[in-house]
Amino acid sequence: DESLHEILGIDKKYRSLGIIGARTGAGPHAISADEAVKASNTEVIIFETSNDTKGGGGHGNLIVFGAEEVSDARRAVEITLNSLSWAFGGVVGNEAGFLEVQYTARASHVLAKYFGAELGKAWGLINGCPASVGMLMADAAVKAADVKIVKHCSPGHNTCFTSEFTIFVTGDSGAVKQAVLAGKETAIKLLRTMGGEPEAMAKPYF
Amino acid sequence: DESLHEILGIDKKYRSLGIIGARTGAGPHAISADEAVKASNTEVIIFETSNDTKGGGGHGNLIVFGAEEVSDARRAVEITLNSLSWAFGGVVGNEAGFLEVQYTARASHVLAKYFGAELGKAWGLINGCPASVGMLMADAAVKAADVKIVKHCSPGHNTCFTSEFTIFVTGDSGAVKQAVLAGKETAIKLLRTMGGEPEAMAKPYF
Amino acid sequence: DESLHEILGIDKKYRSLGIIGARTGAGPHAISADEAVKASNTEVIIFETSNDTKGGGGHGNLIVFGAEEVSDARRAVEITLNSLSWAFGGVVGNEAGFLEVQYTARASHVLAKYFGAELGKAWGLINGCPASVGMLMADAAVKAADVKIVKHCSPGHNTCFTSEFTIFVTGDSGAVKQAVLAGKETAIKLLRTMGGEPEAMAKPYF
Repeated sequence: DESLHEILGIDKKYRSLGIIGARTGAGPHAISADEAVKASNTEVIIFETSNDTKGGGGHGNLIVFGAEEVSDARRAVEITLNSLSWAFGGVVGNEAGFLEVQYTARASHVLAKYFGAELGKAWGLINGCPASVGMLMADAAVKAADVKIVKHCSPGHNTCFTSEFTIFVTGDSGAVKQAVLAGKETAIKLLRTMGGEPEAMAKPYF
Repeated sequence: DESLHEILGIDKKYRSLGIIGARTGAGPHAISADEAVKASNTEVIIFETSNDTKGGGGHGNLIVFGAEEVSDARRAVEITLNSLSWAFGGVVGNEAGFLEVQYTARASHVLAKYFGAELGKAWGLINGCPASVGMLMADAAVKAADVKIVKHCSPGHNTCFTSEFTIFVTGDSGAVKQAVLAGKETAIKLLRTMGGEPEAMAKPYF
Repeated sequence: DESLHEILGIDKKYRSLGIIGARTGAGPHAISADEAVKASNTEVIIFETSNDTKGGGGHGNLIVFGAEEVSDARRAVEITLNSLSWAFGGVVGNEAGFLEVQYTARASHVLAKYFGAELGKAWGLINGCPASVGMLMADAAVKAADVKIVKHCSPGHNTCFTSEFTIFVTGDSGAVKQAVLAGKETAIKLLRTMGGEPEAMAKPYF
């Protein structure tokens, strides 16, 4: 609707909007939406995050895809929702907290626009809650492989005041994967000392 | 106390303060406090919101009424608390999220000062959680009737990083009510597809 | 690691970092970390707070100690964790909310840097959730003794949008203790009217 376009400052060429919102899982949604723009004629024009109000310690999100055709907007939403089934495999947690790792060999526009990626290059997300877990993951990750930190988040910086510490890294595809997996290994050991056996929310995809 | 007046920058003419705080329900509190200032010799001098830490996805609040007489401050608090019993009728939810709609034919100073209303004119609140629900409510509302959006809130704008999307609308009294009810209908359909039958927190008042 | 030092802007003289993070209890962590810097050759170089995502209504935290020797960093972490066992005695709550009071006769660098204390002087924290409880605690505290409010927090100021109202006070050691205890007494009465008998999270230490 024109009014909604106006108040949100959305270009009128995007006659169709694809809208996704969730109270948890901003990381899985980010990489899923990135897959969606790779495979559809759309752009993400809004990606906002919220403090996870379901008790999980992370972020929720609101994602708006802009498209000229309604079929494109619909396709972007479908791809995003389907991709979540593997992307949640990057989240592993127990009652004390969680880790999240995401990895792509070829980042697209969503990760570039909102999460520090370089278009077409490898990108990784290394995140832990509470923030101390994330900080120790980050330390292990940058020691394990030659990667560049392109953005970081902490309770007071670039988060919605969540109890998380996150780094986004780029570099050679093998190095990014190695860094991400080193972070994950560190977090699993830490979470084990803080609570029960950490469980993945879906089958890990890498 | 003088110290509290000073640190909060409260005019000393307000010798009595009426204080209300809640961890949930900022919308019902807003319209209830508006009723209170209509019917008492008080002003709302602080209306701050917080991220609902009880898991509900919305906002808590802190409301301070300023009055010259203690009986006025007390009366404002009483009217607010009594009004909550109907105002929570505007909130309908299930385990996946909620909608909130509020409506008044004649907004007073609280809604004008903090929520975009025009004094003495009709005003409506159209809100949904997760934010995708609220955005689709807003779209349905502005298509259903000739109303003006005077303010909007999203996870990254004008909220405490909650997973909500909200519009406040003004216009002709009948149009505002029609817009609000169209938003509500849309949200109920959406919430049904996401979880169990949505339930109102009190009897709907319009 | 050098990368982590760089992105966080940490002086390289701090070759060792002691890292603590929690999703709840920023107040107990603050006074515990203050004890740690008193008794170890460290500084707190990061103290960030987060919105408590476990439903408690308060703040989580990320604390980083900087040290030149690894044994110092380790000692600071140990003292902090040990101190938490008494510091949580300052938190008393029920299902409706909570109060927190903290007191020290001699504040050190953490309280001075982040919480308005004067080095070596008495300092008190008076906090309540929901914010209305904290505001009434503050009023009772400043009426009970001659103390100076050095900082205050409310849902919209100096908090992570939590439903809290807090004051930090300084003054004569006896006056600070008296003010803090007056605030506590007020909150316990209020919480009793709102829910079950409030319970302390550990044995009160003063």
